[in-house]
Amino acid sequence: MKDKNISLAVIRRLPKYHRYLKDLLDRDITRISSKELSKLIGFTASQIRQDLNNFGGFGQQGYGYNVEDLYHEIGKILGLTREYNVVIVGAGNMGQALANYASFSRLGFNLKAMFDINPKLVGLNINGVQVYDIDEFNAFVDSQDIDIVYICTSRAGAQDVADRIQKTNIKAIWNFAPIDLKVKNDIVVENVHLIDNLLTVSYFLKGKEADHS
Amino acid sequence: MKDKNISLAVIRRLPKYHRYLKDLLDRDITRISSKELSKLIGFTASQIRQDLNNFGGFGQQGYGYNVEDLYHEIGKILGLTREYNVVIVGAGNMGQALANYASFSRLGFNLKAMFDINPKLVGLNINGVQVYDIDEFNAFVDSQDIDIVYICTSRAGAQDVADRIQKTNIKAIWNFAPIDLKVKNDIVVENVHLIDNLLTVSYFLKGKEADHS
Repeated sequence: MKDKNISLAVIRRLPKYHRYLKDLLDRDITRISSKELSKLIGFTASQIRQDLNNFGGFGQQGYGYNVEDLYHEIGKILGLTREYNVVIVGAGNMGQALANYASFSRLGFNLKAMFDINPKLVGLNINGVQVYDIDEFNAFVDSQDIDIVYICTSRAGAQDVADRIQKTNIKAIWNFAPIDLKVKNDIVVENVHLIDNLLTVSYFLKGKEADHS
Repeated sequence: MKDKNISLAVIRRLPKYHRYLKDLLDRDITRISSKELSKLIGFTASQIRQDLNNFGGFGQQGYGYNVEDLYHEIGKILGLTREYNVVIVGAGNMGQALANYASFSRLGFNLKAMFDINPKLVGLNINGVQVYDIDEFNAFVDSQDIDIVYICTSRAGAQDVADRIQKTNIKAIWNFAPIDLKVKNDIVVENVHLIDNLLTVSYFLKGKEADHS
């Protein structure tokens, strides 16, 4: 699979294709043209053909795309040919929200444990998953072959977690704390910066209101 | 303020500038060069100068940027010259997580109420905010001048909320449900599609592992 040269913009669109193809599968739709897919997903048909051509062109003239094949191919590109062991650090509201997301485990992201510093949270069982003291983090993740850590701590606690992670074999962080973590660049960090996102809401809302005044 | 022609890419970087400038203010740093800002924020100095030039160039040769002025100017562009009334629909884990984020209200996003269909959640008080039955939604938001709805329902419930919103004066949705909502295009919709984001983690992790194999 040569997908080294695919642009980041295309990569970031792939999960959306994956999601819509799953819906089609669930509705027993077996093939779809780029034009029909365009209507559903909101990208232009030409954008869709261009995006999917990156992976060797699964479409056939006059037939369209085989939904199941395309779903699985995109899944492969996104790394869904295997399962991932995951832990959450920070068992507050956000950590608990993520622990309760059934879709993550359906895709193969298996939550193995949660960690916190708060004695009131340590020992809890959230959706079948135990909350441990953060001091047990390194021993646990090394023995359990953990792939990804979701960081859901406060801003103040997040870099400490990142430092702990760098003493393990873990190579991926999904960070929800409102801070840009400093880590060696062999570790993947994806951020969900909610405030950054909320401020684009107010930006666009301001624009709408200006349009109408 | 003419910011109609600013590209979406620049807009999406502004909240990050805003966040870093706030940190500098909190540390009593009053001015900063594009070079120093570059070290902090990770964009190149030339990118920073280019981005900030969009707003009339607040930097002065040999002086750098006045941190407080720049913070307030960017805040203005992002719509932070006023406060926003907000409600959350969906009082499950994600809704509760958002209700407990102090930083939102610090920026002027004031949570006025939460709504749910689940009788077990209706009547709860979460961080000082009441959870109402969804049937009270339209009457409430019309009387309380609500600006933004955070949708934290399941995938199945989200479009119904969007339909209710379209019968009100609300012009902005921050959507956490894993679905692309159908709304009239006078309504701003910003999505936080967690699964899409998680699948980019697995994509990049796959790349890292391929590099080392």
